[in-house]
Amino acid sequence: MIVVLKSNTPREKTQQLIDEIKSQYSGVACHCNEGTQVTIIGLVGDTSHVDMDSILAHQDIVERVTRVQEPYKMVNRKFHPQNTVITLDNGLQIGGTQVVVMAGPCSVESEEQIIEVATKVKASGAHILRGGAFKPRTSPYAFQGLRAEGVELLLKAKEATGLPIVSEVMSAAQIPLFKDVDIIQVGARNMQNFELLKELGRLKKPILLKRGLSSTIEEWLMSAEYIMAGGNERVILCERGIRTYETFTRNTLDISAVPILKHLTHLPVIVDPSHGTGITWLVEPMAKSSIVAGADGLMIEVHNNPERALSDGAQSLKPETFDGIMTSLRRYAQVEGRTL
Amino acid sequence: MIVVLKSNTPREKTQQLIDEIKSQYSGVACHCNEGTQVTIIGLVGDTSHVDMDSILAHQDIVERVTRVQEPYKMVNRKFHPQNTVITLDNGLQIGGTQVVVMAGPCSVESEEQIIEVATKVKASGAHILRGGAFKPRTSPYAFQGLRAEGVELLLKAKEATGLPIVSEVMSAAQIPLFKDVDIIQVGARNMQNFELLKELGRLKKPILLKRGLSSTIEEWLMSAEYIMAGGNERVILCERGIRTYETFTRNTLDISAVPILKHLTHLPVIVDPSHGTGITWLVEPMAKSSIVAGADGLMIEVHNNPERALSDGAQSLKPETFDGIMTSLRRYAQVEGRTL
Amino acid sequence: MIVVLKSNTPREKTQQLIDEIKSQYSGVACHCNEGTQVTIIGLVGDTSHVDMDSILAHQDIVERVTRVQEPYKMVNRKFHPQNTVITLDNGLQIGGTQVVVMAGPCSVESEEQIIEVATKVKASGAHILRGGAFKPRTSPYAFQGLRAEGVELLLKAKEATGLPIVSEVMSAAQIPLFKDVDIIQVGARNMQNFELLKELGRLKKPILLKRGLSSTIEEWLMSAEYIMAGGNERVILCERGIRTYETFTRNTLDISAVPILKHLTHLPVIVDPSHGTGITWLVEPMAKSSIVAGADGLMIEVHNNPERALSDGAQSLKPETFDGIMTSLRRYAQVEGRTL
Amino acid sequence: MIVVLKSNTPREKTQQLIDEIKSQYSGVACHCNEGTQVTIIGLVGDTSHVDMDSILAHQDIVERVTRVQEPYKMVNRKFHPQNTVITLDNGLQIGGTQVVVMAGPCSVESEEQIIEVATKVKASGAHILRGGAFKPRTSPYAFQGLRAEGVELLLKAKEATGLPIVSEVMSAAQIPLFKDVDIIQVGARNMQNFELLKELGRLKKPILLKRGLSSTIEEWLMSAEYIMAGGNERVILCERGIRTYETFTRNTLDISAVPILKHLTHLPVIVDPSHGTGITWLVEPMAKSSIVAGADGLMIEVHNNPERALSDGAQSLKPETFDGIMTSLRRYAQVEGRTL
Repeated sequence: MIVVLKSNTPREKTQQLIDEIKSQYSGVACHCNEGTQVTIIGLVGDTSHVDMDSILAHQDIVERVTRVQEPYKMVNRKFHPQNTVITLDNGLQIGGTQVVVMAGPCSVESEEQIIEVATKVKASGAHILRGGAFKPRTSPYAFQGLRAEGVELLLKAKEATGLPIVSEVMSAAQIPLFKDVDIIQVGARNMQNFELLKELGRLKKPILLKRGLSSTIEEWLMSAEYIMAGGNERVILCERGIRTYETFTRNTLDISAVPILKHLTHLPVIVDPSHGTGITWLVEPMAKSSIVAGADGLMIEVHNNPERALSDGAQSLKPETFDGIMTSLRRYAQVEGRTL
Repeated sequence: MIVVLKSNTPREKTQQLIDEIKSQYSGVACHCNEGTQVTIIGLVGDTSHVDMDSILAHQDIVERVTRVQEPYKMVNRKFHPQNTVITLDNGLQIGGTQVVVMAGPCSVESEEQIIEVATKVKASGAHILRGGAFKPRTSPYAFQGLRAEGVELLLKAKEATGLPIVSEVMSAAQIPLFKDVDIIQVGARNMQNFELLKELGRLKKPILLKRGLSSTIEEWLMSAEYIMAGGNERVILCERGIRTYETFTRNTLDISAVPILKHLTHLPVIVDPSHGTGITWLVEPMAKSSIVAGADGLMIEVHNNPERALSDGAQSLKPETFDGIMTSLRRYAQVEGRTL
Repeated sequence: MIVVLKSNTPREKTQQLIDEIKSQYSGVACHCNEGTQVTIIGLVGDTSHVDMDSILAHQDIVERVTRVQEPYKMVNRKFHPQNTVITLDNGLQIGGTQVVVMAGPCSVESEEQIIEVATKVKASGAHILRGGAFKPRTSPYAFQGLRAEGVELLLKAKEATGLPIVSEVMSAAQIPLFKDVDIIQVGARNMQNFELLKELGRLKKPILLKRGLSSTIEEWLMSAEYIMAGGNERVILCERGIRTYETFTRNTLDISAVPILKHLTHLPVIVDPSHGTGITWLVEPMAKSSIVAGADGLMIEVHNNPERALSDGAQSLKPETFDGIMTSLRRYAQVEGRTL
Repeated sequence: MIVVLKSNTPREKTQQLIDEIKSQYSGVACHCNEGTQVTIIGLVGDTSHVDMDSILAHQDIVERVTRVQEPYKMVNRKFHPQNTVITLDNGLQIGGTQVVVMAGPCSVESEEQIIEVATKVKASGAHILRGGAFKPRTSPYAFQGLRAEGVELLLKAKEATGLPIVSEVMSAAQIPLFKDVDIIQVGARNMQNFELLKELGRLKKPILLKRGLSSTIEEWLMSAEYIMAGGNERVILCERGIRTYETFTRNTLDISAVPILKHLTHLPVIVDPSHGTGITWLVEPMAKSSIVAGADGLMIEVHNNPERALSDGAQSLKPETFDGIMTSLRRYAQVEGRTL
């Protein structure tokens, strides 16, 4: 971390700041470089715990503070060079050589629906069933999910098909309901719901952490760090598009996030082209691009009857379309030396 | 709401869609206009409950869906032309003729600190004491607030000074601790924490709802609608800057949101220039602009010793600076025919 | 185009507006749908010439105007279903089955440099030499390019290697210098330099139009429409990243723009992962993703000595790295059934 | 400027880089601070000419480069503490104590129109007549302005009313037509049309430089630096809204840019609330806010018949509305100790 002081900062004030930093953060050393125009303090050692804001708070003498090292530690590939591979109860590995596909409806709507979709996506080769029981909806008047009943139906579909399941949690109070859910999803709107992240950090269950609507990659990794710092090392990152001024798509899918994350962190990275674009005919090309960019998996919305879907029907694929896409994706996984 | 159908949509499919909409949403009428190139269905009546996505889900025949009426109802000024005025227990009114100032530290840090700041901002004319007990921090290693103890210290400062208090809640589980807090704040990162909003909708306490980091005005109003739909009509909106590509400021304070909100909704609107800019010397000009743009109040960070602040020291004013600003702001309130 | 009128608009004012539209735009018919709450006018026929703003200008009666059809016509795939294939003088086709690679330094710096790079990228299989003679630089103190001399050196490199060349023009006055340049590039900052676009519309030479820093896809296509409307049908679109709040990369490369453009327009689409990310190690994964997403070509910065580059050294590949990437890219082109 | 080297950079490579920087930029000194984990080179002296990219180009050894000093010099208030005041031929001063109002139609449409509007805005107290002769339009099919004839009509209006005029130039070739125009405007889309900026730098005429659609404040100041570096010190900056994801307004007017610019530069700053919002009823509150935030002037669109305006009718005020706003604005100028 580099602290640039204002010109004409008296030497004693500089020393005071250095003393303060040293006393507050053991393991951090300060190197001071006094120039004629500008004085620079370089903080070295483990600066992940140093609060940039608290240094900036010395408004009278501090001009600027810049991080040199990443503010995250447990998610950082530098300190954990090998890929994290997450193994589910049925032996499925996420982050390994296989490209993992999670497919299913936006919302669980009925037993028939979820079992039908589960059966079909399994037949097409999907590895995990997705389905929303608790639904974050912009409008209080929109369908809010079947909630506890939705989780039960998912478990029935799991029993019927053997597919592990992933579903979104929206508050700490709901966590007990997810006891038999294989992967707990944190939605984009809750990426910085820190109280929820802390609770999930206490579990041993895999957490799928979606990128916030307009979060930077660093903020996203800091949210993953919350979960890991709590003791849960099984975090999967899911790119789902960011908010831009573009209105043609629902979001702008940031494919470059995939190789960037693979560079910065050891955690598995998957992509959700359904939410990332909001348009069915963009799912295939974006899924292909994601695999080629290095993604460890995909999350794709499939509904047995999109026209009747209670949410996100416009971006849900029909099972037969999904089947065709799976065949196509397998070729791209192969080129990457992976299976799917 | 206007539904544009794809060209060559067979008449019977059009009729099917109309029948479906009618059966699903009582009180909504459909007018169909068949053109040579394009067929348009106009939905009239109360369309606030109509889910645009569920219509878009008819991917085969629907080209585009556009709202004509706002998707919110209870917060809508059209259905509630008079300003909502929120009266606190001590008689202070928010949304009335007075411009209300909420001031205090980012975080409650100790009894001495909060009482000193409370006493000073009261002396300068602040009406409400702000202070964070639960702090949403990007890093798990940063100070997370004194939590329950912080709320207790705020209540002591309230007792000592008579100032009503506002503080942020971060999860439903914390709500009982806020029993004696006058206004509960929902932070930007929780603006779409719908489970929390639903819980707050069950209270009778005023809720200060901050704008999400990158939320549109419509999404923000929909979040206020969540609280009102739950039964709590005492919502205050707080503009606190949005995320843009600009890096000079922490956020880009959207002053235009003030007159827009006053136009669209009857709820009180306040502005937080401290978070909105992140820079102390921008607080005064932005506070003045906000008043002149029609804001009903301001939220300003003041710390007795910004250099030692455990959070947001860089944007916190010293009490004497705050005092000078209050004198200046009074003149602008006067020009607007308001008191402060 | 759909015009939604304000409630209570008198029938005669509605008729007046309809008469006005009809008299101004021949070939446009108006269908009026009077509802109890809202009146809607549907404009059908060729509405590409209808100015939305001029209708919105009827502030007293118009609530909202929405386009149903695209505002562009000549670039629209609906009216020109087949792919446009652009053939250069040497027979090279852009937009055909071959994925075309344009490679070279950001700036032309000397005869030795450009000929060395040209020779090397040709050996690696690049089809076109890129090189900047006129350089748009944020700072007036930064290297501005060799200008006319730079174009001459490019022509020497073309002569030496036989590679067609692409270079950026920055004003209409420079066009004569580009007489022997094979493809004229319009940079992101000039995407809406309409006077320049009009001049380029008078040429018969291929124009490579980069996406503006923060332009929507529709605005970009409208700029292409400027060139085509002037009579020059040889336009190539180049995605080069958009501006977002993310600071890790120079821009956010929008890979989804590729399949969207292939859907909306018949023009060839290429991608520039060098500018799109600003980071050398992201060039390969983003280039692969682009091919798989359907791109017709790539533009990649290669410099014989990036450390000494007068511009964009940080994102320029060394020739040997480029060579390895080309080998890799060929496999992805093959999977797509294309050559490279 | 601070250069952070990668860990394990050999000392001789560090020295090589330092030698290179010193030889390339006379007047720049380098202070090197070798830490155990990280080595930092601090560049002091006049670093405005130092190209960050060229240092970043040393990809093997450079981790990060951060500016400490601003990259602009002539526009920098640090080197020119007093406000620049621009005096027009008729004695009107921009940047002085008076808040200057530029009003008029988006486009010049006819002699009657421009003279009528000019007469009316003058009667209401406007100081300068605005009017577009060359119009940058997204669509090639939209009205492109009366061009040379438009300039002539503006000059007639100037003669008839005595009002100085401001009008937009779109290319260097048009400059001779602006000989008698008092202020030449550079539109948002041309803010980084560097060839045009260089030409305008050779004039002695005031240049009104609008902020680019999504430009940072620093980029904007760098464009002003282009003009000043060319020798023309008479630059006026005009905030006109930036592009965000918000769709309610045409742009998001960044009022905070006003005090920021007044802090960073000595140049006059004005605000265009008409383009900045695109909505007539937002012009007044945003104009008031701008004055209070420290703006030196305003640019407001007024049309004698907005419904018939050939461009921007939806955001143009009627003369009588403008008259009322002027009365209101005078009170705010007074509070600021300025005239209007």
